Amino acid sequence: MRFVKGHGTENDFVILPDPDGALELTAEAVARLCDRRAGIGADGVLRVVRTKAMDLDGAGPDDALLSGAEWFMDYRNADGSIAEMCGNGTRVFARYLVDAGLAAPGEWDIATRAGLKRVTLGASGEVSVDMGAPVALGPGEASIGGAVFRGERVSMGNPHLACRTDRPVAALDLSRAPDFDPAVYPDGVNVEFYRPVGDRHLEMRVFERGSGETRSCGTGTVAAAVAAAGESGPGEWTVDVPGGRLTVTLDGRTSHLRGPAVLVAEGETRPGWI
Amino acid sequence: MRFVKGHGTENDFVILPDPDGALELTAEAVARLCDRRAGIGADGVLRVVRTKAMDLDGAGPDDALLSGAEWFMDYRNADGSIAEMCGNGTRVFARYLVDAGLAAPGEWDIATRAGLKRVTLGASGEVSVDMGAPVALGPGEASIGGAVFRGERVSMGNPHLACRTDRPVAALDLSRAPDFDPAVYPDGVNVEFYRPVGDRHLEMRVFERGSGETRSCGTGTVAAAVAAAGESGPGEWTVDVPGGRLTVTLDGRTSHLRGPAVLVAEGETRPGWI
Repeated sequence: MRFVKGHGTENDFVILPDPDGALELTAEAVARLCDRRAGIGADGVLRVVRTKAMDLDGAGPDDALLSGAEWFMDYRNADGSIAEMCGNGTRVFARYLVDAGLAAPGEWDIATRAGLKRVTLGASGEVSVDMGAPVALGPGEASIGGAVFRGERVSMGNPHLACRTDRPVAALDLSRAPDFDPAVYPDGVNVEFYRPVGDRHLEMRVFERGSGETRSCGTGTVAAAVAAAGESGPGEWTVDVPGGRLTVTLDGRTSHLRGPAVLVAEGETRPGWI
Repeated sequence: MRFVKGHGTENDFVILPDPDGALELTAEAVARLCDRRAGIGADGVLRVVRTKAMDLDGAGPDDALLSGAEWFMDYRNADGSIAEMCGNGTRVFARYLVDAGLAAPGEWDIATRAGLKRVTLGASGEVSVDMGAPVALGPGEASIGGAVFRGERVSMGNPHLACRTDRPVAALDLSRAPDFDPAVYPDGVNVEFYRPVGDRHLEMRVFERGSGETRSCGTGTVAAAVAAAGESGPGEWTVDVPGGRLTVTLDGRTSHLRGPAVLVAEGETRPGWI
């Protein structure tokens, strides 16, 4: 099995080129690939399939909707389960396509289980992805060890609570999940803590539901910018996460996430290993 | 830079073939390779160098001592620092040599900064390494959250305290370092917790100084067998660690550690990445 390893602000992926959809990729195989000690190690797998070779079995958007995109991003979580979408994954996927000569630099769509995602990139450097319209849902709060943090609830398709703090985010203890009112967040919530450190410039850490603290979270980064923007409206925000620097652009209609997407290594699994 | 990724009971390594010692391997490059999100990811690097091409600058055993071994294992910790020896690493190193056709199955020596290490292996399957003579140093104790565990102090070149417990080791909280008397262990100590689960059969977890809990520790596995053996003397012990199953043989003179050594993938870093 040939693979490429890459990351976007340290959200890392095993990329599996499979243009004709010939690969039988079981949940068990994904979990073995993503195992950080007994396998290659990653947050998830990005299988690269031609959209026309992808059979969603009615579990995704219409073929007609997706047919405008040549390539489908079949994203899997590290445990082998299927996920609809991953912002940083889309950026790394786009970098791979250009690097492999499967797409030209510019602006085009990638097909995903959450519909078409528009990406913009050059031959090298940063990659931007249209993350869709954030929905601000009003105030909310979470606490860490009894200390209450107030913030803004934001839906990016998945639920977020972006809380402002005036202390350096490095000082927060995110070794355990922040507490929140389960009546307000029946499906759980991703909690961001951000601090303004300059003009339209934030530092942020995130606790992802089901994962714990992560080095980066694309939708969480946009949610923090939305919460920080508040009344100030559209604009461009710089957000420093533990894994690097991202830029969020809000235009009142949609949101864009821009940042590095790096291909680290390429190779193949050993015969008989998987 | 070409590499192979492999592991022994989930102690994992990036193997760098460099027969002629041509590679300038800085501490920074090692740290980047071993980074589990921004790099390939591993507990350490095993550079594969011909002994005659290795210049130890007087910081290791005499050339004359090592010249009986064709291959030198240049082991580096994940942070880029140099380490003398790694039991599981030696087993994976030996598996790589045979797999790459650089050594024939059988029994031979590998040169390391801690001297020659004798390995035994076939064309596939488990690999055994002579870990040297354990030195039992008498009783000792450590505690977790106030609960005291009594055990045996064992030197394997590095210091160990192997403590017996009668509860399943899965129930222990090893998220923080066990407490011990710093006057007894001025350089710190690796602490093993083992429980007999059958005839000469242990289950074990280990907290390594400087690293925290790990999936496996070669010297710690031998130390636990030595402590469990006590008066019962020489014999063969099965030790189940979180990363798999190891076998320790004690013969009153030396110790051998046997277990799986698996090569997972091979490839090369992307041009310009490192």
